[in-house]
Amino acid sequence: MGYFVGIDLGGTDIKAGVLDAQAMVRTQTTIPTEAARGPDHVIPRIAELASRVISEAGLTPSDIRAIGVGIPGPIDPERNVVLSAPNLNGWVNIPLHQRLTELLTPPVTVMNDADAAAYGEYWIGAGRSPDVRHLVLLTLGTGVGGGVIVDGHLYGGAHGAGSELGHTIIEPMGLRCGCGQRGCLEQYASATAIAAEAHRRIEAGAPTQMRGKPTAKDVFAAAAAGDAVAADVVNRTCEYLGVASVNFVRAFDPRMIVLGGGVAKAGAVLVEGVRRAFEARTWHVRKEKVVFAAATLGNQAGFIGAAGMAADACGALATH
Amino acid sequence: MGYFVGIDLGGTDIKAGVLDAQAMVRTQTTIPTEAARGPDHVIPRIAELASRVISEAGLTPSDIRAIGVGIPGPIDPERNVVLSAPNLNGWVNIPLHQRLTELLTPPVTVMNDADAAAYGEYWIGAGRSPDVRHLVLLTLGTGVGGGVIVDGHLYGGAHGAGSELGHTIIEPMGLRCGCGQRGCLEQYASATAIAAEAHRRIEAGAPTQMRGKPTAKDVFAAAAAGDAVAADVVNRTCEYLGVASVNFVRAFDPRMIVLGGGVAKAGAVLVEGVRRAFEARTWHVRKEKVVFAAATLGNQAGFIGAAGMAADACGALATH
Repeated sequence: MGYFVGIDLGGTDIKAGVLDAQAMVRTQTTIPTEAARGPDHVIPRIAELASRVISEAGLTPSDIRAIGVGIPGPIDPERNVVLSAPNLNGWVNIPLHQRLTELLTPPVTVMNDADAAAYGEYWIGAGRSPDVRHLVLLTLGTGVGGGVIVDGHLYGGAHGAGSELGHTIIEPMGLRCGCGQRGCLEQYASATAIAAEAHRRIEAGAPTQMRGKPTAKDVFAAAAAGDAVAADVVNRTCEYLGVASVNFVRAFDPRMIVLGGGVAKAGAVLVEGVRRAFEARTWHVRKEKVVFAAATLGNQAGFIGAAGMAADACGALATH
Repeated sequence: MGYFVGIDLGGTDIKAGVLDAQAMVRTQTTIPTEAARGPDHVIPRIAELASRVISEAGLTPSDIRAIGVGIPGPIDPERNVVLSAPNLNGWVNIPLHQRLTELLTPPVTVMNDADAAAYGEYWIGAGRSPDVRHLVLLTLGTGVGGGVIVDGHLYGGAHGAGSELGHTIIEPMGLRCGCGQRGCLEQYASATAIAAEAHRRIEAGAPTQMRGKPTAKDVFAAAAAGDAVAADVVNRTCEYLGVASVNFVRAFDPRMIVLGGGVAKAGAVLVEGVRRAFEARTWHVRKEKVVFAAATLGNQAGFIGAAGMAADACGALATH
C-alpha cells in the first residue's frame, strides 16, 4: 500500500510526518521555518525535511506514494501557486508545487493548511466515524480558519477558495478585519480577538482580576477561576461561534462541527458553550442532527491531513 | 432520449410542463392548487396534472423517463417525506413520493422548490454556460429560498437540509423570524421584509410619497420615481444581500450568484445594487471571480428545474 508524507508549513516551524496506509504516524519531526529568510530559503528546507522523515522512518523515496504540503494561505488551484501567506516573509505568488516537484521524487500536493487540518480531523480525528461524512472544522488560533468536508472529500468551490469561514460576516457593522471586511468571525472568535476583548474591558475598568494584556488562555483560566468579566468574554465568544454555526449548518448541513486550534484547548467549556449558543439560536422548525466536538489531533492535524489528502488525491485511501 | 415532466407545487397554483432531453419545454399547464382542501385533495390533482400535460404533449406515460416535483418546504431525504409546507394546509410529514408513485407510471423524484429553481437556472437559465458549474440561487419572494449547485449537481448536505440560505443570520440581535431565529436574511431581503420596512418608515413619518402598505413592487417603483425613502429601503435590501453574498462566496466559492423570485423582477437596480454592496464589503486580499445575475426563467424555473433534476437523477442528462 505504500507510505505518505505530510508536511505542515507554519510561520514558526515546519512539521512533517510519515504515515502508513492505515493512517498510523510512523515518525514525525519539527524544524524551525526560518521564515524571515524568505521562500528561497524555506522551500529547500521543506524538501530536506521530507527527505529526513522518510529516512528516519527507515524508508526510501520510492516507498512514498505521495507528499502533501499544507500552507498558511490561499492557493490558486488553476495555476497551482501559493497566492500569499501573511505569516511567511515574501510569500506572494510562489509556484511551490513546481519548486517541490523539482526537488522531490514522489508526487506533491499543495493545499491550504486549514483544509488539511479539516481532512485530518475527518480522516482519523474527531470525525473518525462511518456516520460522519460531512464535517466543518474551525481552527481558532491567531486567526480563524475553516475547512469543509463534503461526502468524504474536501470542499473546494469553483476557484478553490471555498470554506474561508473565518471571513464570513457575523456583524455587518462590526469590527474591521485585516482582510478589509467588517465584522468577520475572525474578529470575534480567534485567540487574538478574545485577548483583545479582555484587554478592552480591563482598560474600561471592568471589575476583573485580569491585568494588562491577557492571552486567550489567561482569559479561559480566569473564567474557570470565577472571574465574571472573563466568563463574559468567553460567553461572548461562544455566542458568536453559535451564530456562525447556525450559518454553517444552514449552508452546508454537516453532521459534525469540530473546533480546533489553540482556543479549542479550552475543551468542554468552549464546545458546550458553542453548542448551547447554537441550540438557543437555531430555528425550531426542525431539529438539526449536528454534533459539536473538539479537535483530537492537536497540532498533528495539519501534517496528518496533508498526508491524507495527498493519499486521497492519488486514490490510495478507502476511508469511512 | 425520452421526455421529462416537471411539476412546481405552490400555495396558489400547480405548474407543470413536459421537457424533451434538449430541455425544450414542449407544453405547460397551470391549475389552482386548492390548498385549503388539504393533501388528500392536492396529491391526486398533482397526478392528474402530470397525466394531462403528458397527454397535451401528444405523449403517453411510457414516453416519460422521469417526473420531478418541487415542494415549498423541506424534505426528509432518508424517509422521502415532505416534513412541512407552511403555505399548504395540512402538509406535515406527507409521504408524497410514495403517494405519487402509486398514482403515476414513471419514476418520481420529490425535491425542495428552491433547489429545483436553482437547478433550472443552472441548467438552462442564468447559469447556462460551460463556465458556470458552481452557482448559488436566492429566490426573493414571500420568504427567501436558496439553492446551491456544486460542480453541476444540487448540493444536499449530510441530511438533505443544506442551502437554507434565507435562514442564515446576518444580524445576530436582529428581527425575529418565523423560523424562531433572530436576524435571518429572510427578514431583510424578502418581498415581505421590503414591504414591512417601507411601512415602518411611513408610520414613522418619513418624507415619502408612499402611502399605507406598499408592496415590494411599489417600493421599487417609488424608488425609480425618485422617492428618497423608497430608494433607501431598496439600498438597505441590497446592502444586506451584499453581506449575505460575501458569506455565500466565502462558504461555497460559486462562479455565479443568481437573484430570482418576485423581488428580482426589479432587474438591474437590484442586481447592480447587490453587486456594488458585495464589492464594497468583500475583502481586498484577493479578487473574487463571482458574477451576479438576475434569474432568466421566471416562474418557469421551478418546473423546468424539477424536470432537470429528475432527468439528472436517472442519469439522462449531459449538462455543461
